[in-house]
Amino acid sequence: MKQIAVIGSGIIGTSWAVVFARAGLQVRLYDGDAMQRERAVAVLRETVRASAALLREGDSVEAVLARVQVVDALDAALDGADYVQEAISEQLDAKRALFAAMDARLAPAVILASSSSTYGVSLFVEDLPGRARCLVVHPMTPPHLMPVVEVAPAPWTSAVVTQQAFAFMQALGQVPVHIHKEISGFVLNRLQGALLAEMFQVIADGVISARDADLLLSQGLGLRWATVGPLEGVDLNAPGGIADYLQRYGHIFNGMAAEKGLPAPVDEALAARLDAEMRASLALDGLARKRSWRDLAVVQVRQAMQPLYGEKP
Amino acid sequence: MKQIAVIGSGIIGTSWAVVFARAGLQVRLYDGDAMQRERAVAVLRETVRASAALLREGDSVEAVLARVQVVDALDAALDGADYVQEAISEQLDAKRALFAAMDARLAPAVILASSSSTYGVSLFVEDLPGRARCLVVHPMTPPHLMPVVEVAPAPWTSAVVTQQAFAFMQALGQVPVHIHKEISGFVLNRLQGALLAEMFQVIADGVISARDADLLLSQGLGLRWATVGPLEGVDLNAPGGIADYLQRYGHIFNGMAAEKGLPAPVDEALAARLDAEMRASLALDGLARKRSWRDLAVVQVRQAMQPLYGEKP
Repeated sequence: MKQIAVIGSGIIGTSWAVVFARAGLQVRLYDGDAMQRERAVAVLRETVRASAALLREGDSVEAVLARVQVVDALDAALDGADYVQEAISEQLDAKRALFAAMDARLAPAVILASSSSTYGVSLFVEDLPGRARCLVVHPMTPPHLMPVVEVAPAPWTSAVVTQQAFAFMQALGQVPVHIHKEISGFVLNRLQGALLAEMFQVIADGVISARDADLLLSQGLGLRWATVGPLEGVDLNAPGGIADYLQRYGHIFNGMAAEKGLPAPVDEALAARLDAEMRASLALDGLARKRSWRDLAVVQVRQAMQPLYGEKP
Repeated sequence: MKQIAVIGSGIIGTSWAVVFARAGLQVRLYDGDAMQRERAVAVLRETVRASAALLREGDSVEAVLARVQVVDALDAALDGADYVQEAISEQLDAKRALFAAMDARLAPAVILASSSSTYGVSLFVEDLPGRARCLVVHPMTPPHLMPVVEVAPAPWTSAVVTQQAFAFMQALGQVPVHIHKEISGFVLNRLQGALLAEMFQVIADGVISARDADLLLSQGLGLRWATVGPLEGVDLNAPGGIADYLQRYGHIFNGMAAEKGLPAPVDEALAARLDAEMRASLALDGLARKRSWRDLAVVQVRQAMQPLYGEKP
């Protein structure tokens, strides 16, 4: 990939442009709204400047900005593009029309990626001749700061295209994950939504204030999850790893689910599946070493945040 | 507070001892199990050494360790204590017996705090003459690394005791939050549980691998939540703050709940409550400044983690 088209210059599109340009690629950024295009120039400058610490060694704010061209016609953005990242607003009709136009215009090898956060790509490319080159590449906002990206193909997306998009994200320094089924909200937003829904409940019930609920994350779970994911976390919290953990505490999750009238999430099959996957990446005798690593990492994160707390608005 | 008794010398008790000793307090640590007591000495040393970056200026590993005495009788630990932190195993009968013994032995002004993570203190102190000085002070494990602490009184806990425990935790450098009702698992574990239950579900459904689900946190949501809590986060994600956000996206949470047959979490009352609380702490015209702060903080956290990723077991 050398030349990238980004369609839509809102928060997500401008941030994507920075991700691509930071990696040394040429970017053409287009938006149908002239005001948005004008705004984008200033936003790009501020975005690159504020995240200058993440530039590659030897690169500069000006050099990155010089790689992004804001253009005033869709054709100008698409012309010569190797990869397109759509980042327009979350409206099915608009996405459908844009993807049809792009599919008609671009050579078959060009990947058409949507930043859609709610709709699977199936919902707006089904009838296109080139639907096999379309998929969702959904970033966490804003992608120039948040590495993780959900790569979610339609059932008909070519496996090669999915693999190329995945490898491309890795090459950019993002952290892609595979979404194997097009469920609404994919996984990132469902996880966030599940946590928020529980927060909403305890706040509505008068158990805790909003401020205190936030502190449980920013001074607790968030500090841990910035270093190890929740499954890695529980894997470290029992001598025998996640299988041991679920045997000891699985009933708590099932009890919470039962309280809400939901089916039990933890059963033998899940425990076996998680155990197999966790142990394939780290044997039990590596847990102690990983615990030490996690603790060291938490200290580093706290140290990094310490000078900032006093200035938090 | 000058002298602290910590009862139970497992992972949580030894970590608590470090929290207190690091703040300059004298600590007596007791465990009913002689093997645990012996182990504690080595664990304490390793714990203080590995987290030396968090010591107060001018303090040293040896000086902190010198403030902790592992004793072999409950009486020896309680003698002269101003505050007791119980951290024995999660068994109601054992907690009931211990609190009865402590209540009988200690002067009325001494606060008896339990580290219980699942049981409200009501369940094991109801019949004690001194039940008004008992409450749960539940840390995130391990407290010497994780600042947040849930302060959960029983209905009969004296408001003064609750306030003193809260202020004490702040003085130690921990971040206490108020839990106003004794619900099972308090809030920290319910939030964690809600996220894990959703993870278990998408993994069981074959939507994503365990590894990739973890990456959504450690390379995404966790990096954000180490800087701002989830409510602060959504407050920053719409021009008009959280009220605006819920008006735009509340239907997504309600849709997810409906899918599971649960009542809608987002309604007018919740939106009004959250809006009032968020705007009381930061006016709308401060959101842009806070967004910049959040972005800067995320960059700092990523910078702190960068050298560690390559060494993650």
